[in-house]
Amino acid sequence: MPNVVFVVGLGPGDPRFLTAQAQSALTQAEVLCGYTVYLDLVRPYFPDKLYYSTGMTKEIDRCRWALETARSGRAVALVCSGDAGVYGMASPLLELAEHFPDVTVEVVPGLTAALSGGAVLGAPLAHDFCVLSLSDRLTPWEVIERRLAAAAMGDFCIALYNPSSKGRPDYLARAVRILLANGKAPGTVCGIVRNIGREGQESRVLTLAALETTPVDMFTTVFVGNAQTRQLSGRMVTPRGYRA
Amino acid sequence: MPNVVFVVGLGPGDPRFLTAQAQSALTQAEVLCGYTVYLDLVRPYFPDKLYYSTGMTKEIDRCRWALETARSGRAVALVCSGDAGVYGMASPLLELAEHFPDVTVEVVPGLTAALSGGAVLGAPLAHDFCVLSLSDRLTPWEVIERRLAAAAMGDFCIALYNPSSKGRPDYLARAVRILLANGKAPGTVCGIVRNIGREGQESRVLTLAALETTPVDMFTTVFVGNAQTRQLSGRMVTPRGYRA
Ligand SMILES: C[S@@+](CC[C@H](N)C(=O)[O-])C[C@H]1O[C@@H](n2cnc3c(N)ncnc32)[C@H](O)[C@@H]1O
Ligand SMILES: C[S@@+](CC[C@H](N)C(=O)[O-])C[C@H]1O[C@@H](n2cnc3c(N)ncnc32)[C@H](O)[C@@H]1O
Repeated sequence: MPNVVFVVGLGPGDPRFLTAQAQSALTQAEVLCGYTVYLDLVRPYFPDKLYYSTGMTKEIDRCRWALETARSGRAVALVCSGDAGVYGMASPLLELAEHFPDVTVEVVPGLTAALSGGAVLGAPLAHDFCVLSLSDRLTPWEVIERRLAAAAMGDFCIALYNPSSKGRPDYLARAVRILLANGKAPGTVCGIVRNIGREGQESRVLTLAALETTPVDMFTTVFVGNAQTRQLSGRMVTPRGYRA
Repeated sequence: MPNVVFVVGLGPGDPRFLTAQAQSALTQAEVLCGYTVYLDLVRPYFPDKLYYSTGMTKEIDRCRWALETARSGRAVALVCSGDAGVYGMASPLLELAEHFPDVTVEVVPGLTAALSGGAVLGAPLAHDFCVLSLSDRLTPWEVIERRLAAAAMGDFCIALYNPSSKGRPDYLARAVRILLANGKAPGTVCGIVRNIGREGQESRVLTLAALETTPVDMFTTVFVGNAQTRQLSGRMVTPRGYRA
């Protein structure tokens, strides 16, 4: 199977979250390429592969390397955590692939953190929801603010990705204040899940008011309920029906 | 393994979208329960199970039956298409499970249609996105309208579920008009995917203006891009970075 790059969503971590399709793409590939942490998750299960790992911010280099390697006749799997599309490598890879018309790109979806973390909490995203990243590395903060306001005004359930990082420890608190200012009640049921599907997984259900002062790190996904979301026996559950 | 109900997201259809965790839950269960169409997807792979199938709208009956069966000591898997949480059975099951304190509910996530359909189109949901259902069976249409407006004002990418049904063939056209009235441009790149991961899968990339007059059915998921989304070699690709 030459001239193909699979861009593969691994799910949150443990191989039990791999789909059969992702398994098969990893099996077919000769070379596995991606960020070191994600490669280490699959290496024990696919020991006979070539591995090419790069740092976190070298995304375009990684895509170019994958496409050039595929053009030379070796099938490549570019691995991402979660889903391949959601803040993942599928988009930059497909953009760059415009310059490699002889290479086929196959997108292999995976369990994004909103789904895997949602299952840990219960059913927080059982009604209309938004997925929103708080990282302003590639997006102006004003756009993020505007989206937070819109998500609150629509009373969406929300999954927040990249809720924190070293350079911006206060972003989650800022985001919470925007949600509160745009109609989310302080008592809104929220949840946080850290290290989903990995060693050290932990989760907690709390109110939006409490979330404002809760420290989180970048290995965490944060869930904000809608006006109907309830805490039931320690789980976060959004009803499917909407009682006005 | 007695007194457990697994609520299992099967992904879009074909068993290649099952995770290893979902496989294992189906293997452990003695009884598989759910809507007929979804049970038929897995029956060939798990022939030695008891099957209990019910019609589409008997959701609460199905949950009660599952909990009562688990209480009597037989492990049950309640199956859903896509993810178990997203417009799925996890939420009503966890609500009813409050009355069955001796039964454990385990939520097993799956590939929701936004992810599996997104992979078919390319990478439509590579930046912030909303998942929104157009069904007003359990949600007042005013709430749906308000969320459509908010999603457009935030320039979110959008995945629309339940875009049509027999009783409301014009809901997608109505939704498109609300998006247009709230800031989405007529040229916004959109996509539709029908029968994701099933026989007869088909997909198409088109503009928001064209979407207004395109008939769709309930086996379709509709994708609306943000202002940055492009059509590239027939695929729908949203950039990860946001150029103002
Ligand atoms: C660059 S995004 C990648 C998202 C990934 N492609 C997905 O679909 O899940 C990184 C963010 O995803 C979330 N995330 C990804 N994997 C996670 C995990 N195992 N546990 C908790 N959060 C996770 C965190 O919010 C993290 O900051
Ligand atoms: C009641 S919702 C169930 C959603 C499901 N739990 C999920 O996470 O994908 C039904 C809607 O999901 C979408 N859907 C589910 N499976 C699909 C498939 N195989 N192909 C296209 N759309 C699908 C359609 O929009 C459909 O009207």
